[in-house]
Amino acid sequence: MTNPLANSITFNTIALVGKYSAPGIDKDLLSLARFLMNAGHTVVLEHDTAIKLDIAEFTVMQPKQIGKNADVVIVLGGDGTMLGIARQLAPFGLPLIGINQGRLGFMTDIPIERMYGALSEILAGQHQLEQRALLEGRVIRDGQEISGGLAFNDIVVARGAGSGMVDLTVTVDGHFMYSQRSDGLIISTPTGSTAYALSAGGPLLHPSLAGIVFVPIAPHTLSNRPIVVSDRGKIVIEISSGREASVNFDMQSFAHLMEGDQIHIQRSNYKICFLHPKEWNYFHTLREKLHWNEAPAKN
Amino acid sequence: MTNPLANSITFNTIALVGKYSAPGIDKDLLSLARFLMNAGHTVVLEHDTAIKLDIAEFTVMQPKQIGKNADVVIVLGGDGTMLGIARQLAPFGLPLIGINQGRLGFMTDIPIERMYGALSEILAGQHQLEQRALLEGRVIRDGQEISGGLAFNDIVVARGAGSGMVDLTVTVDGHFMYSQRSDGLIISTPTGSTAYALSAGGPLLHPSLAGIVFVPIAPHTLSNRPIVVSDRGKIVIEISSGREASVNFDMQSFAHLMEGDQIHIQRSNYKICFLHPKEWNYFHTLREKLHWNEAPAKN
Amino acid sequence: MTNPLANSITFNTIALVGKYSAPGIDKDLLSLARFLMNAGHTVVLEHDTAIKLDIAEFTVMQPKQIGKNADVVIVLGGDGTMLGIARQLAPFGLPLIGINQGRLGFMTDIPIERMYGALSEILAGQHQLEQRALLEGRVIRDGQEISGGLAFNDIVVARGAGSGMVDLTVTVDGHFMYSQRSDGLIISTPTGSTAYALSAGGPLLHPSLAGIVFVPIAPHTLSNRPIVVSDRGKIVIEISSGREASVNFDMQSFAHLMEGDQIHIQRSNYKICFLHPKEWNYFHTLREKLHWNEAPAKN
Amino acid sequence: MTNPLANSITFNTIALVGKYSAPGIDKDLLSLARFLMNAGHTVVLEHDTAIKLDIAEFTVMQPKQIGKNADVVIVLGGDGTMLGIARQLAPFGLPLIGINQGRLGFMTDIPIERMYGALSEILAGQHQLEQRALLEGRVIRDGQEISGGLAFNDIVVARGAGSGMVDLTVTVDGHFMYSQRSDGLIISTPTGSTAYALSAGGPLLHPSLAGIVFVPIAPHTLSNRPIVVSDRGKIVIEISSGREASVNFDMQSFAHLMEGDQIHIQRSNYKICFLHPKEWNYFHTLREKLHWNEAPAKN
Repeated sequence: MTNPLANSITFNTIALVGKYSAPGIDKDLLSLARFLMNAGHTVVLEHDTAIKLDIAEFTVMQPKQIGKNADVVIVLGGDGTMLGIARQLAPFGLPLIGINQGRLGFMTDIPIERMYGALSEILAGQHQLEQRALLEGRVIRDGQEISGGLAFNDIVVARGAGSGMVDLTVTVDGHFMYSQRSDGLIISTPTGSTAYALSAGGPLLHPSLAGIVFVPIAPHTLSNRPIVVSDRGKIVIEISSGREASVNFDMQSFAHLMEGDQIHIQRSNYKICFLHPKEWNYFHTLREKLHWNEAPAKN
Repeated sequence: MTNPLANSITFNTIALVGKYSAPGIDKDLLSLARFLMNAGHTVVLEHDTAIKLDIAEFTVMQPKQIGKNADVVIVLGGDGTMLGIARQLAPFGLPLIGINQGRLGFMTDIPIERMYGALSEILAGQHQLEQRALLEGRVIRDGQEISGGLAFNDIVVARGAGSGMVDLTVTVDGHFMYSQRSDGLIISTPTGSTAYALSAGGPLLHPSLAGIVFVPIAPHTLSNRPIVVSDRGKIVIEISSGREASVNFDMQSFAHLMEGDQIHIQRSNYKICFLHPKEWNYFHTLREKLHWNEAPAKN
Repeated sequence: MTNPLANSITFNTIALVGKYSAPGIDKDLLSLARFLMNAGHTVVLEHDTAIKLDIAEFTVMQPKQIGKNADVVIVLGGDGTMLGIARQLAPFGLPLIGINQGRLGFMTDIPIERMYGALSEILAGQHQLEQRALLEGRVIRDGQEISGGLAFNDIVVARGAGSGMVDLTVTVDGHFMYSQRSDGLIISTPTGSTAYALSAGGPLLHPSLAGIVFVPIAPHTLSNRPIVVSDRGKIVIEISSGREASVNFDMQSFAHLMEGDQIHIQRSNYKICFLHPKEWNYFHTLREKLHWNEAPAKN
Repeated sequence: MTNPLANSITFNTIALVGKYSAPGIDKDLLSLARFLMNAGHTVVLEHDTAIKLDIAEFTVMQPKQIGKNADVVIVLGGDGTMLGIARQLAPFGLPLIGINQGRLGFMTDIPIERMYGALSEILAGQHQLEQRALLEGRVIRDGQEISGGLAFNDIVVARGAGSGMVDLTVTVDGHFMYSQRSDGLIISTPTGSTAYALSAGGPLLHPSLAGIVFVPIAPHTLSNRPIVVSDRGKIVIEISSGREASVNFDMQSFAHLMEGDQIHIQRSNYKICFLHPKEWNYFHTLREKLHWNEAPAKN
């Protein structure tokens, strides 16, 4: 997972993205920006972050401009903030650093209290570069693509709120896998395996696993277990029946579906690159987030 | 999964292995042997199969000799028979064909009723060649390897029958993953994901996935979910505490463990090669075995 | 579960309810009606059944009239048909007999092929009388009851289709049980434990158990397991946050919810009475429906 | 759960039981004993506790004598200590108070730091009296009872460590429930539902529920879900096949089983009585032990 050439990256221009809804984050963001400027970096602010926090002292850029002009992005917030910006920046391949201003996140793995030290090391080339897979999905109706998007966590097909279960027909590489009656189906990356897929009973996938997991939500057939396939597979989900079904990408964009609609899913050619501190390890995050380090608490 | 060169394999010498405990199997085996002989192949019988069924009319070989001399092995029996011989033949790389004489198996995918037609096609080069991963495990005590073996399904560390839970410490590639108190831990290949690991709550892994799954058995900590890692990982399980713990390889060989013992597990360099009929597909087997094709049966 | 006085019930007036959407059911229903008439019973038809099937030859009654005038109701259809009529007839206490015209049902336990024999015996007093619990729920907003209903299977609080998880606060008998972030929460009777609750990972409850089960749907906290409480408990679920949340009763009636709304749930004073054939046993149905009688199908 | 007459119990003689293996417990136990003596109670020490801790200053009694002579028992230790003594004292019906000297326990619900205040209130009649069910099991071989015992948590039938799955045939009240191939079967009280049964995937049962839960351990058939039955049921488990199977009662006494052996299980006529502080509530313990009160920790 460590790139031997990683320390040859130069970080001239650094873009900052903040969770602008978090109280007090403007102060932290400003301190961070000045710290980086003093260290000789050019600092730009993501557009919405700058507007919402009313910070006028730095160059402001839209995510696309950031993608083209910055060398690295630092996200100050939580996993939700990271998720949103990472998807937008995926086509540009620039590395992301995540600082959590609340609880430790899966993707925002540097605590704000250790921010300056950790960033100094990372920007000096002392880091791990980790690549994460994304999914791309296209919604096909009557042979036409009507919608689509990227997903860093998951693509979820779900029944309508007021209607019964949805019937889905799933194929992988043209081979019929199963018909499934359920509340829905989660197609998740390793990154997403700690999110909604986990709540629905899915397994954890290490980010270095080249796999995609299918997690049914409340499946009618009790033997309909989560299944992990290679991430080279081409997945097609067809809505066999189910009024008001919908599909969403990372719970951030939605499309309503009709019977006969197909969702075509495959691994994206893009990757998300994270820069982690040298001592970072995925299992550490997992233990912290899932409370595995706690003393057993049963009888 | 299909090898374009597969049909260039020549099948001069065919070895037969039978589930000798199955009543009436001698007749089927003899018919099969004569059928193959008439088709111009040289037929040899696996030693135990020949002895137990008292068949004297063919050359008899030990598995090792089969590995060195045969071009292909046909197993007539169930998945257990296949599991046993496949592990012994793993170092030799020769392909295996599975014929089930009872219910459809995961690895014995040709029903005995369609045996002749299917074999004719396969031996004429109309087949799919599929490779499956194996695990190798070594038990280390005080720095010495005291036991070890290959596993096609799984390597299972488990508590003693009359004692409490076992405490295990698990690392992957030298990184601490977790300490776990449980009845045991199943380390499973994709092939084994439909066996014991599934009963213990694990996910299904498609055989083409380059992954290994850890499935805890009755873990004390409720967030201790199955986790899938890349099959390039080096796994070490240490017995932190637990009287009478043991490890087994495919439930076929066992070793007693003491506190401080380590089990080192990694993917084997060997592969198991299956020859399947042209129309074979893994999902079909899965649907059949897990009854996914059944009409929903709840309220 | 067997009532020693059961055979003292007299069945003068028998009401018939049919799954009118099922092709060909009119013929079966007519045959059944004539069979009962010939046996000396007065036969009435449920209103919708008569209208939709265009059967004019019998007295037609609305469910309420059936409740007041009939001695027993025979349902010809599936569990859905039974579920619908049972809830409407709950206040009247009259016994129900279920005949399935398709697959065996949990509540429609007499196969149509054995209908005449089974009914002859039951109506002659050879039967088991079984009582099942119902739930009643009331939706309270700003201190006012705005909606409510009975549930024979379950009362389900769920998030909106296009929104994130819902936060619920649950108390039992005034004691705070938990706050839960999830897709929703199923409050189920033993009868409902084989329906949606089972798909969402809940346990089976024998119908004679005086219990209610809480099954979270995709809960955020992994230790949020299903919990079974005594059916004497008073349950209050409050919507702490969650746009577009809703509650439904047996998936048949719905109400939209707002933050702060409470759902008050308790066992109804009504009971559903089933008449089963003498040899009926709940476990038999369970085995059939959940395929427990099948030969093991794994590796 | 609260007994209105509870405060009429008089507590002249108080027996103390300690987890003698816990370092430093002798000091706490002595302080407690003197505190109670000073408050006018007669204090006796359980035999093993006194011997192992070498405390000579109080009357020493075997559990049976305690059962006959004491008015209440105070357990200082963990749930394991409580489990052991509670089973021995079950026939005598005297109430138990649990003080945990480490982590909060399910049954030892008073933290040692608040011990004096809590005991003063409880012994002054300010308490809740809660009754818990026990199971009794008898092992029958060739028509003879060869072993048996009480269980406060669970009765567990399990396969041998080095052998394959065990086949069990289960009936309830003479009705065949299922044949099951698995690692074993846990028959648990509500009290035991937070122990081994929970690890194996069982639901939580509130202690006031009159139910018994069957939790299969790694069952071969995926639809073999936990099932909760009324605690009035007579359960029979027969070993259909399985070398080296065994049964245990609360993991504290064991018996080896042979094919054809039956285990007969029913609710015991005895009850365990706990005295809890006035403000005690089961759900509070559950939240603490299962970390339900934690902020959500996922993505």
